[in-house]
Amino acid sequence: MVSKMKQIKGGVTAAKGFLAADTAAGIKYKDRKDMAMIYSEVPFYTAGTFTSNIVKAAPVKWDQKIVYDEKMAQAVVINAGIANACTGEEGMRCCELTAEKAGELLSIPKEHVLVASTGVIGMQIPTDRICAGVEAMAPTLSGEIESGHAAACAIMTTDTHEKEVAVEVELGGTTVTIGGMSKGSGMIHPDMCTMLSFVTTDAAISQELLQEALGADVEDTYNMISVDGDTSTNDTCLLLANGMAHNPMIAEKNEDYEAFCKALHFVNETLAKQMAGDGEGATALFEVKIVGAESKEQAKLLSRSVVSSSLVKAMIYGHDANCGRILCAMGYSGAQFDPEQVDLFFESEAGKIQVFCDGVALDYSEEEAAKILSEPAVTAIADLKMGQESATAWGCDLTYDYVKINADYRS
Amino acid sequence: MVSKMKQIKGGVTAAKGFLAADTAAGIKYKDRKDMAMIYSEVPFYTAGTFTSNIVKAAPVKWDQKIVYDEKMAQAVVINAGIANACTGEEGMRCCELTAEKAGELLSIPKEHVLVASTGVIGMQIPTDRICAGVEAMAPTLSGEIESGHAAACAIMTTDTHEKEVAVEVELGGTTVTIGGMSKGSGMIHPDMCTMLSFVTTDAAISQELLQEALGADVEDTYNMISVDGDTSTNDTCLLLANGMAHNPMIAEKNEDYEAFCKALHFVNETLAKQMAGDGEGATALFEVKIVGAESKEQAKLLSRSVVSSSLVKAMIYGHDANCGRILCAMGYSGAQFDPEQVDLFFESEAGKIQVFCDGVALDYSEEEAAKILSEPAVTAIADLKMGQESATAWGCDLTYDYVKINADYRS
Repeated sequence: MVSKMKQIKGGVTAAKGFLAADTAAGIKYKDRKDMAMIYSEVPFYTAGTFTSNIVKAAPVKWDQKIVYDEKMAQAVVINAGIANACTGEEGMRCCELTAEKAGELLSIPKEHVLVASTGVIGMQIPTDRICAGVEAMAPTLSGEIESGHAAACAIMTTDTHEKEVAVEVELGGTTVTIGGMSKGSGMIHPDMCTMLSFVTTDAAISQELLQEALGADVEDTYNMISVDGDTSTNDTCLLLANGMAHNPMIAEKNEDYEAFCKALHFVNETLAKQMAGDGEGATALFEVKIVGAESKEQAKLLSRSVVSSSLVKAMIYGHDANCGRILCAMGYSGAQFDPEQVDLFFESEAGKIQVFCDGVALDYSEEEAAKILSEPAVTAIADLKMGQESATAWGCDLTYDYVKINADYRS
Repeated sequence: MVSKMKQIKGGVTAAKGFLAADTAAGIKYKDRKDMAMIYSEVPFYTAGTFTSNIVKAAPVKWDQKIVYDEKMAQAVVINAGIANACTGEEGMRCCELTAEKAGELLSIPKEHVLVASTGVIGMQIPTDRICAGVEAMAPTLSGEIESGHAAACAIMTTDTHEKEVAVEVELGGTTVTIGGMSKGSGMIHPDMCTMLSFVTTDAAISQELLQEALGADVEDTYNMISVDGDTSTNDTCLLLANGMAHNPMIAEKNEDYEAFCKALHFVNETLAKQMAGDGEGATALFEVKIVGAESKEQAKLLSRSVVSSSLVKAMIYGHDANCGRILCAMGYSGAQFDPEQVDLFFESEAGKIQVFCDGVALDYSEEEAAKILSEPAVTAIADLKMGQESATAWGCDLTYDYVKINADYRS
């Protein structure tokens, strides 16, 4: 099957029937956009994946109920000031009041309003401000590309740029669109500021397959990025499908489903890599590929361990090929392999160099290695020579600015 | 039983019959002490625990053979320039030549010479220099307190101060001494520069009980510290007992064994805390106590997760009570607990403050919290209110200097 996917401009409003809005509601900071809203002209099926942290923020609990029980909704209200985590009953009540207010203004039941938050943990949200924000946004909802873009900007916290992407794909002769926006970094290892990802599509697809497609793809995309090893209380990824493209309904795992999954993967991977490269304080996107693995699980464990190592990340920042640290991080990953068989390479726009052969350091050129490591995107490739499986993880370097941002995050 | 333990001056030469020496061998750096040696007038029983990393440095493999098979030795040769990890056959040969040289000079079999290394991974050790170092040290071996102190200084890498401690304890009416030195930080999560710990004692104790005492105590001491989440290829902890105190031989778990374990625990915990507080770039020792736990294992998982969180560590550096991050780190630890029951406190020389009650943030004084967090030793206490078990973990804050040290470690 030849895939007819193509990338287009736009994000969360690219798909038919999806509108967005944003506002500066002063939730925690003044004079800064800090709320966004997504609305669909018709109800959409919802699929979602959420933080594995036992400490779940109130909005995560609210959305899980909708995704698991209702399976449908029509709007999402997002705030990027306060996480609404560790806030007890008052936090849950805030979600309910937010949904009620949005429901009232949009004439939909409160059970059809998803909410998402990111920001400081352990602080209550001023409910009056969030309701005022919803009131300000509702009349300005628009399907323009610019509205989606403004929403992607409004959900940023320590992000340095907005993250969005959209694609078109032919499904059964009909053009279907998938677009998304996200903020933060990581699902298994997210940045403090939480990963939030919102992907919308006008595809007609059953809720079961929608959830299955998302659940599977998250494993290879958002779950393969790491900024600092901390898993937020608020991580949320929502995939919303309103069927307005009127493609032949996808109700089984046919060719159309495969094409949909492929396009969804492109959207998720693009957003995930944008988040990894924009990790707090980062100066470089760091990609780790494990090849020649016996199993996918082994390759994932190893690549995630390397991409999460503080020592490896500091080495990338220093453009210093102290590559024993990579073998060291593989060694404590929990995966079994033979260190004395590993070949190791660095690759970037500046070239490719082999630094280890059969687990022993080669006498390579330090200058050439430093040149390769000085690019804004650097890949480390480890070949286990055990089998045919592979996995890729994404992260970033560890810099002074990471410490700076997180030492005084609240001030 | 009233324990008659008392702390005394000294380190690795405090116990009878143990001598030490040090030298500047130019292994990797010029004009810096980088080798040390421990020797006992009579052979000692050896107990040891080693890195769990699959990638094990050559000296770890060499020592494991001695500890597990020979169970006795008489000397230890340490270098703090090059790790001798990822060095293949040549690396193993270097260990053998080092032991041969020391054996020749000290008239003991090479199988009775332990070796330990710390430093850069993936580089071969110049064997001629290490042998010259052994030659320089052998004639200067001395049992003076100063020799032990000089050895503790010589094994430092990025450590900012030497780490040693010694105690005396009465066993069956005889005074027995235990003393030790260490460098680096961490066993489960050590600093790049590896944790090496050498504890000597003149106690008469069977090798089986010696190993059991060390193995059990490591779990509550060295394994409860973390600097950066990376587990080195070289971590080694050796406990050497030469019996020269002539106390009644400890061959069963009697009162003397209990007293010995208690004294050993004091030595190990002191060295472990010294390493945690001297983590690379650290400005504060950070202690995390989990109390009211259902099981020891649960308490350990939780305390280690908090002490290892980059976000929590950056918060300690910033003196900012952004304490939701502590609950967040508990939440992704893998341990089960009810977040809505947790009470959280900060404590230091400046006082104690409660910041969370039943999982919800209290309206505490930010100024008072900042004052408490500004001390050089800070404790976070989380009460799970589930049972009677507890555990303590030690780490340090995350600072600009950590990044600086590790971005250009090799230059």
